[in-house]
Amino acid sequence: MTAARLIELWRGGTRESAHLGHVVISDANGIVEAWGDPGAVIYPRSSCKMIQALPLVESGAAEAAGLGSEQLALACASHDGARIHTDRVVAWLSALGLEEDDLRCGAHMPNDPAERKRLTCTDESPCQIHNNCSGKHAGFLTLKRHMKAGPEYVEIDHPVQRAVRRAFEEMTKETAAGWGIDGCSAPNFACTVEGLSCAMAGFAQPGTGVRGQAQRRLVEAMLTHPELVAGEGRACTELMRAMKGRVAVKTGAEAVFVGIVPERGLGIAVKILDGGTRGSEAAITAIMVHLGLLEEGHPVVQKYLTGPLRNWRGFSTGELRCAEGFPS
Amino acid sequence: MTAARLIELWRGGTRESAHLGHVVISDANGIVEAWGDPGAVIYPRSSCKMIQALPLVESGAAEAAGLGSEQLALACASHDGARIHTDRVVAWLSALGLEEDDLRCGAHMPNDPAERKRLTCTDESPCQIHNNCSGKHAGFLTLKRHMKAGPEYVEIDHPVQRAVRRAFEEMTKETAAGWGIDGCSAPNFACTVEGLSCAMAGFAQPGTGVRGQAQRRLVEAMLTHPELVAGEGRACTELMRAMKGRVAVKTGAEAVFVGIVPERGLGIAVKILDGGTRGSEAAITAIMVHLGLLEEGHPVVQKYLTGPLRNWRGFSTGELRCAEGFPS
Repeated sequence: MTAARLIELWRGGTRESAHLGHVVISDANGIVEAWGDPGAVIYPRSSCKMIQALPLVESGAAEAAGLGSEQLALACASHDGARIHTDRVVAWLSALGLEEDDLRCGAHMPNDPAERKRLTCTDESPCQIHNNCSGKHAGFLTLKRHMKAGPEYVEIDHPVQRAVRRAFEEMTKETAAGWGIDGCSAPNFACTVEGLSCAMAGFAQPGTGVRGQAQRRLVEAMLTHPELVAGEGRACTELMRAMKGRVAVKTGAEAVFVGIVPERGLGIAVKILDGGTRGSEAAITAIMVHLGLLEEGHPVVQKYLTGPLRNWRGFSTGELRCAEGFPS
Repeated sequence: MTAARLIELWRGGTRESAHLGHVVISDANGIVEAWGDPGAVIYPRSSCKMIQALPLVESGAAEAAGLGSEQLALACASHDGARIHTDRVVAWLSALGLEEDDLRCGAHMPNDPAERKRLTCTDESPCQIHNNCSGKHAGFLTLKRHMKAGPEYVEIDHPVQRAVRRAFEEMTKETAAGWGIDGCSAPNFACTVEGLSCAMAGFAQPGTGVRGQAQRRLVEAMLTHPELVAGEGRACTELMRAMKGRVAVKTGAEAVFVGIVPERGLGIAVKILDGGTRGSEAAITAIMVHLGLLEEGHPVVQKYLTGPLRNWRGFSTGELRCAEGFPS
């Protein structure tokens, strides 16, 4: 089975570009609907941060450090490096007696326009706190300290990453099909698109034990603080706000997107073959409309899927469309 | 026939993403080599600016306005809006007795880091001169004045665009399969990938008449001023410099790339289905290596194709590879 045509770009009556990929919707019993190849092996990248945060909560490290829902949302976040994000990560590290230097995520210019402007115009370099993964890494550091483990917490055989791998394999119900190094230097484990959607279905229907409690806390944290999970103007934040706390969504690099729908016990995984965000944002939006969780006329649906593409003079020049057969 | 798998992204031993598309290499007799579907209908977007500039030269408008090779290179450019570009466009318009307000390309923030920083830190808005197409539009305005035609030179039935369409259809040897509105508001005519490569083969082997002279002047202008065709750090500029004036290349939005190889009489057209620049830059680089025009070890080949992908800490995390069967 191969990737399915999911999203198309039309201009002047001609199909100019197209995004192929894989989409799986699962519940506790398995696949509910799928497009493309559910068995395709992918890296979830940042879309699985809520899985990577499970050991932090399950181990008791989060409670011991007094983490609240804001910190847990940041642990699941790919944030914009706005002050609302960086101030909280700085305070979190400080409360642990740690500093920026203890992070292993690397530095990059933040996406937040105000902070980017401040850094640019003062010739200040971005630091590791600005890294979109600094919340996840603060979570790793919290767990590392709780475990009394060594400082190189992103190494594949470090106790933190061994715990992450265990959680990942249990949630996906697969043995990891390999691992790669992520943009933030942490290991990222490979799974099938079906495995990722299965993991999200697990978060959508948490049990009663330690794992179920951890899943519930992490999803609630994401739903309570959509602005901490990404930032103003970003797809994760805007989609979660539009769905009013009913659905958690999370993007990952190379065009992965996941969804967690607690009220229906559904988990969703999207991977666009070409790795482009335009396709993954459009596809997850289409799935939310398909499931009746977003109205087709909502401004967010227009922004990520149905609205006209406009050029520099504001003229409508084209539009994204769902390909025939996707999602219905 | 469908799009072929051309470029892949590998991470940790797993193929993470892939770019499908169409590539055609033509000479004066037709297709020499092809991958994907030569008959796929595409918009060349900015990759066909040298075709759009033909009426400017053939009509005598360029000579009447005293345009030199710098202006002709800018007419074929998608420039960065650096001072080397904007100063020349301002002077060009001024010599015509025109100003920024006569352009119809719209304004956008330039790609050039220094000019972007200047605008950001002074809270100055970008103007239409910064538009990456402002050289093409200065060319349109030059032709419009020569034709004594009206000011709305981007309208589909304006004499300027009728002349462009004629040149486009003659060069591609096709009746335009439709047209769309480009990012800069000019019409962009549709053709097949084969038609676009045929047009580039025409530029590679110009005849002796008015058209041949115009083709020769435009290609020479691009080869003489690679920094005016795009900008520092950009693929068009870096690839042309690396090939030392032997090959002209030009990118277009939605992942089009063309090449003109005068010494071999070859024209090349690349369209990546997903519209992502990563794929088109890698594919045109692969074709240049395949044709023996670039050495595999050249830094530009490493940058756009073979070099490791590095994360924020500088670790190698993956690499692009040519898919099996592409280009050899």
